[in-house]
Amino acid sequence: MSLVHFPPVRVETRLNTYARSVDERLAELLPSDNAAPSELHAAMRYSCLAPGKRLRPALCMASAQAVGCALVPGAVLDAACAVEMVHCFSLIHDDLPAIDDDDLRRGMPTCHVKYGEALALLAGDALFSLAFEVLSFVDASPVKVVRAVQSLSKATGSDGLVGGEVMDVLAEGRVVSESDLDAIHMRKTGALIAATCEIGGLLGGGSDEQVELLKKFGAKIGLAFQIVDDLLNETSTPEQLGKAAGSDRERKKATYPALHGVEGAAKAARAMLHEGLSHLRPDLFEVSILRDLAEYSVVRLN
Amino acid sequence: MSLVHFPPVRVETRLNTYARSVDERLAELLPSDNAAPSELHAAMRYSCLAPGKRLRPALCMASAQAVGCALVPGAVLDAACAVEMVHCFSLIHDDLPAIDDDDLRRGMPTCHVKYGEALALLAGDALFSLAFEVLSFVDASPVKVVRAVQSLSKATGSDGLVGGEVMDVLAEGRVVSESDLDAIHMRKTGALIAATCEIGGLLGGGSDEQVELLKKFGAKIGLAFQIVDDLLNETSTPEQLGKAAGSDRERKKATYPALHGVEGAAKAARAMLHEGLSHLRPDLFEVSILRDLAEYSVVRLN
Repeated sequence: MSLVHFPPVRVETRLNTYARSVDERLAELLPSDNAAPSELHAAMRYSCLAPGKRLRPALCMASAQAVGCALVPGAVLDAACAVEMVHCFSLIHDDLPAIDDDDLRRGMPTCHVKYGEALALLAGDALFSLAFEVLSFVDASPVKVVRAVQSLSKATGSDGLVGGEVMDVLAEGRVVSESDLDAIHMRKTGALIAATCEIGGLLGGGSDEQVELLKKFGAKIGLAFQIVDDLLNETSTPEQLGKAAGSDRERKKATYPALHGVEGAAKAARAMLHEGLSHLRPDLFEVSILRDLAEYSVVRLN
Repeated sequence: MSLVHFPPVRVETRLNTYARSVDERLAELLPSDNAAPSELHAAMRYSCLAPGKRLRPALCMASAQAVGCALVPGAVLDAACAVEMVHCFSLIHDDLPAIDDDDLRRGMPTCHVKYGEALALLAGDALFSLAFEVLSFVDASPVKVVRAVQSLSKATGSDGLVGGEVMDVLAEGRVVSESDLDAIHMRKTGALIAATCEIGGLLGGGSDEQVELLKKFGAKIGLAFQIVDDLLNETSTPEQLGKAAGSDRERKKATYPALHGVEGAAKAARAMLHEGLSHLRPDLFEVSILRDLAEYSVVRLN
């Protein structure tokens, strides 16, 4: 199955450039493991600096560029790091024995395997807190900072990321309709990616109309992205993924591949990508980077 | 041992009045358990609406009154609820088997005993997120809202609440000096109570000087409060406390009673109360309610 229909080098180079800036800034923003409590800081750094594609931060930065930023402003880079911290917090907690009980993440032992359950739980909490701290200190007007914090907090709560995780856990082993599944994905993955793009556009100086469209774009890309993630879980090896593979099927998780098969799920992901891209009106956005990234994030199925 | 040296009815009536407003507002702010994911919302409501003294919210509201608010503004009430959500989040996570493994809280089964570990973990996360959401939406100028979010996030992260919990866990069974113990308490309890008073003063319209003093006041009251909590753990029954008693000694937890005995610890708590109250300069504050509350919160040892 090969769905790549754009020059893969260009977007990967771009993604790497973004990822390098994010990794450097994350290393500065995360507390030093020389400072007390050093064990906690070490666990936070371990999980948050583990090699990752930094797709969410990239979408944040590309959203700022889509509304006209030639260079990514410092406020956007910091917001992108805040989003990555939220993502890492959610991975740490989801990997815990009480939830998914996963041993492998980003090709390394999960946080609780490395540091124990108590420290992993609290490292997740501390990353979540740090995300709001970093976002509340970004160099932007107070009006924009407040809107960014509102957006991130709404995206992470019971109507967003955490609520989606709960619905996902409760759906295991149950028969779930496509609309139920969309509701899960919208919270679990769509909400944070929507907020990511919204915040990138907002702090990048976008108009209300642009910011609203970026949020809609992100929500759809998030849905597509989740389907692709589930497809990769179904069709890859742990070595390829850097995390458990085939585990969704084992746990009887509600997924698009389970509902529609591999081909049907891939088709649905492409349709959502298309729908997302339709929000990037060429009269309002410099679309190229963001479109390439969205396509790349969805079309990793080669 | 009786340390009550003020008319107990007056302050308890005041505390009850505050608590009723907070309970009513919390019931509105917490998502309905009729809405999906209803299991999560039920767990959030269960833990956050369980009967509590609402001491932190009361200190927040009393701080606003200390800077001259005749009535408590809506923004302060909402901020007080946000602080209580953070407190509940931390109780839920601390009670989990991976940390304190407690079965009883506020006289009821702990969240994970009632709803299972996965849901309790995620209910804590969702309450933490909701705290930032509520605070970011309070009816105040964006400059003040940003400062409030900065204060809360700094107080809850690795240099505050969560960091203190880690240090507390790591100190179990070890010999800990008084200065180490103060560092733990400053983070674990002092930081959030300091932020609570700071935010109450800030959103109540206090000057920078007043807000700064309230923060210092809260930090000391927090330290005193933690010592009293540890004293009660040592000297009460589970029925009196509504949670496990004697558990600190069992776990060889680092506490003031362990370090200085019951009388020595009570003396230290009184000294910290005194130090805290010294920040409430009568030329700058309407001190009466706040002083009574601080004394009450520390002097529950009758």
